[in-house]
Amino acid sequence: MSGGPRIAIDAMGGDTGAAAMVAGVSRARRHDPSLEFLIYGDEKQVRRELAAHRNLEAGVQLVHSAEQIESSEKPSQAIRRARTTSMGMAINAVKEGKADAAVSGGNTGALMAMSKLALRTMPGIDRPALAALLPSLGKHDCVMLDLGANTECDAQNLVQFAVMGSAYARTVLGISKPRVKLLNIGTEELKGTDELKEAAALLREADYLPLRFDGFTEGDQLSRGEMDVVVTDGFSGNIALKTAEGTARFVTDLLRRAFKSSLRSKAGFALSRPALNLLKVHLDPNNHNGAVFLGLNGLVVKSHGGANPKGVANAVGVAASMVRNDITRKIGDDLDNFRAHAFANEAAQ
Amino acid sequence: MSGGPRIAIDAMGGDTGAAAMVAGVSRARRHDPSLEFLIYGDEKQVRRELAAHRNLEAGVQLVHSAEQIESSEKPSQAIRRARTTSMGMAINAVKEGKADAAVSGGNTGALMAMSKLALRTMPGIDRPALAALLPSLGKHDCVMLDLGANTECDAQNLVQFAVMGSAYARTVLGISKPRVKLLNIGTEELKGTDELKEAAALLREADYLPLRFDGFTEGDQLSRGEMDVVVTDGFSGNIALKTAEGTARFVTDLLRRAFKSSLRSKAGFALSRPALNLLKVHLDPNNHNGAVFLGLNGLVVKSHGGANPKGVANAVGVAASMVRNDITRKIGDDLDNFRAHAFANEAAQ
Repeated sequence: MSGGPRIAIDAMGGDTGAAAMVAGVSRARRHDPSLEFLIYGDEKQVRRELAAHRNLEAGVQLVHSAEQIESSEKPSQAIRRARTTSMGMAINAVKEGKADAAVSGGNTGALMAMSKLALRTMPGIDRPALAALLPSLGKHDCVMLDLGANTECDAQNLVQFAVMGSAYARTVLGISKPRVKLLNIGTEELKGTDELKEAAALLREADYLPLRFDGFTEGDQLSRGEMDVVVTDGFSGNIALKTAEGTARFVTDLLRRAFKSSLRSKAGFALSRPALNLLKVHLDPNNHNGAVFLGLNGLVVKSHGGANPKGVANAVGVAASMVRNDITRKIGDDLDNFRAHAFANEAAQ
Repeated sequence: MSGGPRIAIDAMGGDTGAAAMVAGVSRARRHDPSLEFLIYGDEKQVRRELAAHRNLEAGVQLVHSAEQIESSEKPSQAIRRARTTSMGMAINAVKEGKADAAVSGGNTGALMAMSKLALRTMPGIDRPALAALLPSLGKHDCVMLDLGANTECDAQNLVQFAVMGSAYARTVLGISKPRVKLLNIGTEELKGTDELKEAAALLREADYLPLRFDGFTEGDQLSRGEMDVVVTDGFSGNIALKTAEGTARFVTDLLRRAFKSSLRSKAGFALSRPALNLLKVHLDPNNHNGAVFLGLNGLVVKSHGGANPKGVANAVGVAASMVRNDITRKIGDDLDNFRAHAFANEAAQ
């Protein structure tokens, strides 16, 4: 019943407060009873929520935090409150080795800044990236990064993201040699920014890495299942991810309107309901919740601010899976490998 | 029956060749018999297609072109073949005043380069932009630009795009003071690139323009109907547009699978079919076909390479509507206004 990953939870970060976070933790525990938790938040509030979940009576340590990071708070302000806020304390638990990973539904910019300051980037990584799984028509989801941690990226950053994303796909999706593509506005070699062209040239030569670089892809190919990892700067990645979410909602809104438009279509909807529920499950963002900051000396998972308990449980599951697969060490090994080859190439020239 | 806009057609550019282009022209003519056409392409091929459409017997002039621009051709190569290719000749017809607008389904990069060289950018415009209508849940579609003409843009470019996009919304959608937003990765003022922040500051002050600047928006808001014009650099715009197209197809593919998953859901589908057809119409990219290059001294409309006759007719309709609304002059007036104010502000400082 114990000895599994220890996850630090920021109970106060999400839009729905401690209730959804604690219910999500309980749900994750039902799925995986070996998980242990360190929960940071307002003691009174969290204790009340804990009382509603029997399976959290043991293996859960509650630590009071007097403050919390606000959703509108600037990262530069947030980092000064690392010691007193639930978010800062959860991250510090990872730094101090008390927890194996932290999960928060709070302000992304603050979470990133605090995590970077407390955990520092891994050797060989200039900037950490936010990675998540994108639903696709293929056999499995596609790892996408960066989703918004870095507004601008150079070629080296993109290559590092490819290495980190591949480690994600290898460990969590179990793909031995992930197919990696760079997001661009065309697939021809001459398309896109100089950074993209240079990153493509570097990846084309890096055949000693455990990944297969397949060139450029475009926005309309993201869900086709033709790649395992898609790499992009944080600006484009954020635009693509949010546009995909918005469009999926747009189409389902239109679908709802269509079904309500006549008695006949209402009857059709009633008949099709079980099948349509499968579609709903596939598109529910809660089933894809849990984006991870890769490239830090420690694991931090961002849960969607509006995630329901199922979504929170998913984010906790992502954290546990990353811990079990020892992804930080695997990224480190790949990076050592990459740098050793790059150095040998330079020396040979 | 005549005296309407004269549209130059590149009959050879699209993936489906002259057949779809000519059928689309015929369809556009059925909808608007006053349109006249100058069709450029292989004489034998086009003549055969014309023979299939009675309503193209008069008011259509066929001009033979010996060559055509290939879909993989570099813009730098294409511009050397302006005089001999169907694309180049259609654009030259606009330059020489023989046609009011050109429509092509060919290579976007080549079309852009050739149009820029032949027609030149308007005074006050540094770079033309590719604009199109995005479907939304609102009362009307949303104008989006740039969709891929400019990989990188500075603040001045973005402001000029806002002016051009607003002229589009005013003339074609009939909105007297369009609501304009800049696409970003957050709505707070401190989010995004320096270019975006500077463009926002400039637009916030430009209250003499016939537009209402509403700040930043994000990818998941694009189809919400809460703005009339969304402005972005061509890289992000292309990623967003293609991601939206891909996601819409992804969801409808899932929907198709869901309906086929059981006999019961197949029956439900049969019942709901008329309502679902409305959804199909709403999402069919052919119904949104026709992106226009704004900011040139002449109108050029890009039709999707794979457009069917309905799509081509739509692109022709966009061209005709732009001509009738004299959009080039209106953009010029707004730009004069913008520069006069900017100059007065500078003088006052």
